[in-house]
Amino acid sequence: MKAKIDYSIYLVTDEVALKGRELLPVVEEALQGGVTLLQYRNKNGEGGKLYAEALALKKLCDKYNVPLIIDDRLDIAIAVGAAGVHIGQDDIPCKIARQVLGDDFIIGVSAHNPAEAQQAIDDGADYLGCGAVYATTTKEKVTALGLDGLAAIRKAVQIPMVGIGGVDLTNAKDVLATGVEGIAIVRAILGAQDVTATTQEFVKIKKNM
Amino acid sequence: MKAKIDYSIYLVTDEVALKGRELLPVVEEALQGGVTLLQYRNKNGEGGKLYAEALALKKLCDKYNVPLIIDDRLDIAIAVGAAGVHIGQDDIPCKIARQVLGDDFIIGVSAHNPAEAQQAIDDGADYLGCGAVYATTTKEKVTALGLDGLAAIRKAVQIPMVGIGGVDLTNAKDVLATGVEGIAIVRAILGAQDVTATTQEFVKIKKNM
Repeated sequence: MKAKIDYSIYLVTDEVALKGRELLPVVEEALQGGVTLLQYRNKNGEGGKLYAEALALKKLCDKYNVPLIIDDRLDIAIAVGAAGVHIGQDDIPCKIARQVLGDDFIIGVSAHNPAEAQQAIDDGADYLGCGAVYATTTKEKVTALGLDGLAAIRKAVQIPMVGIGGVDLTNAKDVLATGVEGIAIVRAILGAQDVTATTQEFVKIKKNM
Repeated sequence: MKAKIDYSIYLVTDEVALKGRELLPVVEEALQGGVTLLQYRNKNGEGGKLYAEALALKKLCDKYNVPLIIDDRLDIAIAVGAAGVHIGQDDIPCKIARQVLGDDFIIGVSAHNPAEAQQAIDDGADYLGCGAVYATTTKEKVTALGLDGLAAIRKAVQIPMVGIGGVDLTNAKDVLATGVEGIAIVRAILGAQDVTATTQEFVKIKKNM
């Protein structure tokens, strides 16, 4: 059965955003602060490293009862028993991922406009990651949608959506005001001086909406 | 059911070895020349590109009734219906790959010494890729086993083995003389001026053993 997902505060890992800190302790601080969903994203690791890190994150997520999503690698998701995968427009097509994974895995798809969003839904996506909401240094080549672009996708589709890209404590409220279920955060949490306190601030903003 | 594999002439793809030529036509020329097994290896592509290329290679392999093995990515192997995967020492562990794939997929493991070979067998490997037999520019950091190193692994284990690394028309006979079931070839075929004729030469060498 598919895991029940709370998309509110969706932390996405990124090695650069850690600025040299260790992944696992930082993620644990974020989980303590109230992250509701974790995505393990690592575009550079060998399969063995990805598997080992994903497995360690799975154990950590289980401790906090938070589902784990794996970026791109369906095989790693299956191997560690993750709740699902997240697929970009350049990854294995969503339709094929659904065939490989069956109905019990969550599949999230990155969508940058209403057409991509609708295609993802047609192909079996459970949720959408939409962005970049703001310009971001995590993905340099990406053009920002802005709040209007995000709202346009929100208006067009019904499935859960998270806004991603440059989301921080100063703009999280605006992003959530578009009607998305959650915010996907990279640097604002992973790079925070006090990871737990910063995460708690995001949780507060969501609760006050 | 597991595909029946002829390990004799095992072509392994490599983008650099193609020297700018297109992958699919070169592979087809090699299949026409008598390649008995194909491995799709691409360490740099996004999942979508890997899937598309693997699918195209699967169709090509089916045409020549040659099994397809996918390097590292179990998910791509499942998605395109490949015969199996090949796993390096830095990839998803063989034992985990076997759990993910079940018993119907071929799993090959790179082994550089008898201990790694035995471990791979214990973990469920179907065949071993052993090397580098000779120093090679395809994998620059690898130390060469030499024929003696290859023979030592051959002596230690019973499952099918292929020698890989710097195998060409001048040394293929020596490699096969160690008792391995096949030779894995990269540059000597992909970079050959006449791919089909060169492959036919390898087939001849194997037949005359």
